[in-house]
Amino acid sequence: MKILGLDSSGLVAGVAVVEDDELVAEYTTNYKKTHSQTLLPMLDALRNMIELDMKTVDAIAIASGPGSFTGLRIGSATAKGLGLALDKPLVEVPTLEGLAWNLYGTDRIVCPIMDARRNQVYTAAYEFLPCDEKFRLHAVIPQSPMDIRELLEQLSRLGRPVIFLGDGVPVYHSVISACNGLQFSLAAAGNDRQRAASVAALGAVYFAEGRTVTAAEHSPEYLRKSQAEREAERG
Amino acid sequence: MKILGLDSSGLVAGVAVVEDDELVAEYTTNYKKTHSQTLLPMLDALRNMIELDMKTVDAIAIASGPGSFTGLRIGSATAKGLGLALDKPLVEVPTLEGLAWNLYGTDRIVCPIMDARRNQVYTAAYEFLPCDEKFRLHAVIPQSPMDIRELLEQLSRLGRPVIFLGDGVPVYHSVISACNGLQFSLAAAGNDRQRAASVAALGAVYFAEGRTVTAAEHSPEYLRKSQAEREAERG
Repeated sequence: MKILGLDSSGLVAGVAVVEDDELVAEYTTNYKKTHSQTLLPMLDALRNMIELDMKTVDAIAIASGPGSFTGLRIGSATAKGLGLALDKPLVEVPTLEGLAWNLYGTDRIVCPIMDARRNQVYTAAYEFLPCDEKFRLHAVIPQSPMDIRELLEQLSRLGRPVIFLGDGVPVYHSVISACNGLQFSLAAAGNDRQRAASVAALGAVYFAEGRTVTAAEHSPEYLRKSQAEREAERG
Repeated sequence: MKILGLDSSGLVAGVAVVEDDELVAEYTTNYKKTHSQTLLPMLDALRNMIELDMKTVDAIAIASGPGSFTGLRIGSATAKGLGLALDKPLVEVPTLEGLAWNLYGTDRIVCPIMDARRNQVYTAAYEFLPCDEKFRLHAVIPQSPMDIRELLEQLSRLGRPVIFLGDGVPVYHSVISACNGLQFSLAAAGNDRQRAASVAALGAVYFAEGRTVTAAEHSPEYLRKSQAEREAERG
């Protein structure tokens, strides 16, 4: 089984190929270029490097949101285009689950936080449950936009050590540090932002479970309305 | 602080740049091409993608062994060449420590195993000790070549759950599974093989501690003699 993973939900752009539970290639950049300048050139470079025949890919796993509206649209448009052209299904990997997968196997609560401005984060909390020799991801707090203080209260009530990751960490670090009674730590460089390898690897799990959509069916999950939509509603 | 990480100690070839505790870029391939065909082209692609001025790199972190003799020589030669040309120090990151760093933050014993043929593995065992909001790596079993059964006995005596990773896992999976009394799990695709991002990130920690060598001083740590040397000694 060969899965192509794409993630452009945040500042990171990434492409990866996982085949039969093995990472064949991964290319990640976290740089000031826009995703339209990086995502397809990276895929093209990687395709040449590993002599990838795109027709042999079984599915395209895409970080399906939440995230930057423009980033999600570039990623989804790319995944839909590839899926249509190659006649391959898509696997939607929620961005927060992909992030959590970076910390595969930890016994702590994994809490990805993505900055959504004005003290709001896109967040969720997960634990890894042992399952034979592997682990499976289980949501302890379902994904939603949330006030950072509300999140910290919910996490404190769990009474378990937490690892935070995501682009919300530097933004809300002082708020987190000031939270009494929460035992926390931070993920390290290399595992603390989106990885297409995680999207592809978790996508392979979901693909095996039959959780696919067609390219036409797929649309990103923004979790809340865009600023333009909110302003239009206000009149 | 900007660290370039290189790893070609096994089948994986990888380059990565970590700057101020953030992964800027990573390029990894685990493919049948030789490292001399992949490592420098990948570095060149990544350099162009993130417009990296090599003179701004503070140090070159290199997976310094153990590993494939040829792979280590290609990696070390590349790192030495870059270090000499750019007049930058090198940071030697033991391959097994770099592998363990992939599972940063787990509470389990991390045991990387690299196949060294004839029931031998290059191995070590680590734990992550909490240290403020971060973790530091602590060796529970020091790195050495070891019989896989001797390793499993030593791990069993620790009485703690273990996560295995590395190219020795598929080779010795049945031996591990047959070991009574050892609670173990396996790392997932994306974190179960060498990552240049981990070499760069752990290299940044060691660089901050002043653990550098000059390009001239560096040589890889093979942990045992090559087959040719062993045969020569036997006469």
